[in-house]
Amino acid sequence: MRYRRIPDETVRRLPVYLRGLLFTSEQGQENISSQNLADLVGVDAWQIRKDFSYFGELGTRGVGYSVEKLAAQTKKILKITIVQKAALVGVGNIGSAVLAYTGFAKYGLNIAAAFDVDSKKVGRKIDNVVVQDISNLRRLKKQKIMLGIIAVPRQAAQDTADKLVKAGIKGILNFSPCHITVPKKVKVITIDIAMELARLPYYMPAS
Amino acid sequence: MRYRRIPDETVRRLPVYLRGLLFTSEQGQENISSQNLADLVGVDAWQIRKDFSYFGELGTRGVGYSVEKLAAQTKKILKITIVQKAALVGVGNIGSAVLAYTGFAKYGLNIAAAFDVDSKKVGRKIDNVVVQDISNLRRLKKQKIMLGIIAVPRQAAQDTADKLVKAGIKGILNFSPCHITVPKKVKVITIDIAMELARLPYYMPAS
Repeated sequence: MRYRRIPDETVRRLPVYLRGLLFTSEQGQENISSQNLADLVGVDAWQIRKDFSYFGELGTRGVGYSVEKLAAQTKKILKITIVQKAALVGVGNIGSAVLAYTGFAKYGLNIAAAFDVDSKKVGRKIDNVVVQDISNLRRLKKQKIMLGIIAVPRQAAQDTADKLVKAGIKGILNFSPCHITVPKKVKVITIDIAMELARLPYYMPAS
Repeated sequence: MRYRRIPDETVRRLPVYLRGLLFTSEQGQENISSQNLADLVGVDAWQIRKDFSYFGELGTRGVGYSVEKLAAQTKKILKITIVQKAALVGVGNIGSAVLAYTGFAKYGLNIAAAFDVDSKKVGRKIDNVVVQDISNLRRLKKQKIMLGIIAVPRQAAQDTADKLVKAGIKGILNFSPCHITVPKKVKVITIDIAMELARLPYYMPAS
């Protein structure tokens, strides 16, 4: 229960640190200073030290953090030490790209099921996952799938979210460009690509 | 220059509000209270009032905000009143999905050029944009393109960023799962899909 006290912003940064730690490990490096990790991930060193101190990781002066140990601890906090299965709804352009994306495995994530309403897509196999009809969503509980990914048109997003919640999903990654309403115990993270791009011009010099 | 004082977190929320305002406008509604906008976008009403107060928009008691006026003002702050052109590098799964994405136009964003190293992709037309060889990147300056989108494999991301900066790009939306280093005046926003999904299990109940 003590993990609950970690601020959302720290939870947002933990996967960033983990990405840096996994990269460092790939390079065969055993220890890393907060400053070297800072350079690698683009977060200030003091922020990194503060974030890791939330779960008692303080590193060793002059040696830094043990890369393996810190990566394992971070995975534990993020609850991705066991493989977490996800279900994707909507196999259009974005959904197909997500299915084909190879970056999930190293975070212990696995897209184990995919759904669409389009009968032409149902039965098709994309990267070892067979697209099922949306009516099969209720079987997710049996498969112990607790993560959902929404990649449907905006108009269908809320209805899809409702169905996912009914099927026992506890966390949703939403690519539809709209806010979706879910019970409080369900966590939603929205990635609206156009909205992210729309933040950039603000920082640009006047032309 | 006074816009520079708006906190990053507010700039992050402004496109969210804009999305809600544009939706409200589509529904033919002329005014909206901060509470109704809050329900629509999933941000607290007090936060919305505080964010809009940064640029002097206080609304009218009992009437709320004028939807059109606030949308126009928000676009002005975000510098998306004129169409901003973007160049995409990497026309793989993610890149193709981004090119085909129809949600950019309403934020005044236009992907005007696309590049790849793969000669099989060069010359192909995707959603009215002809894929060019990466060597043509330096022509971006002439086309007044200041936004770049990176959707290349991790190994090629930093090199692509360097080339974009050299071609005069001032803002980068990075889909490659790594941190890229750019001069201070260039703003980078990274969307690492696996990392976003990796944040969800933390919030899930113990199984």
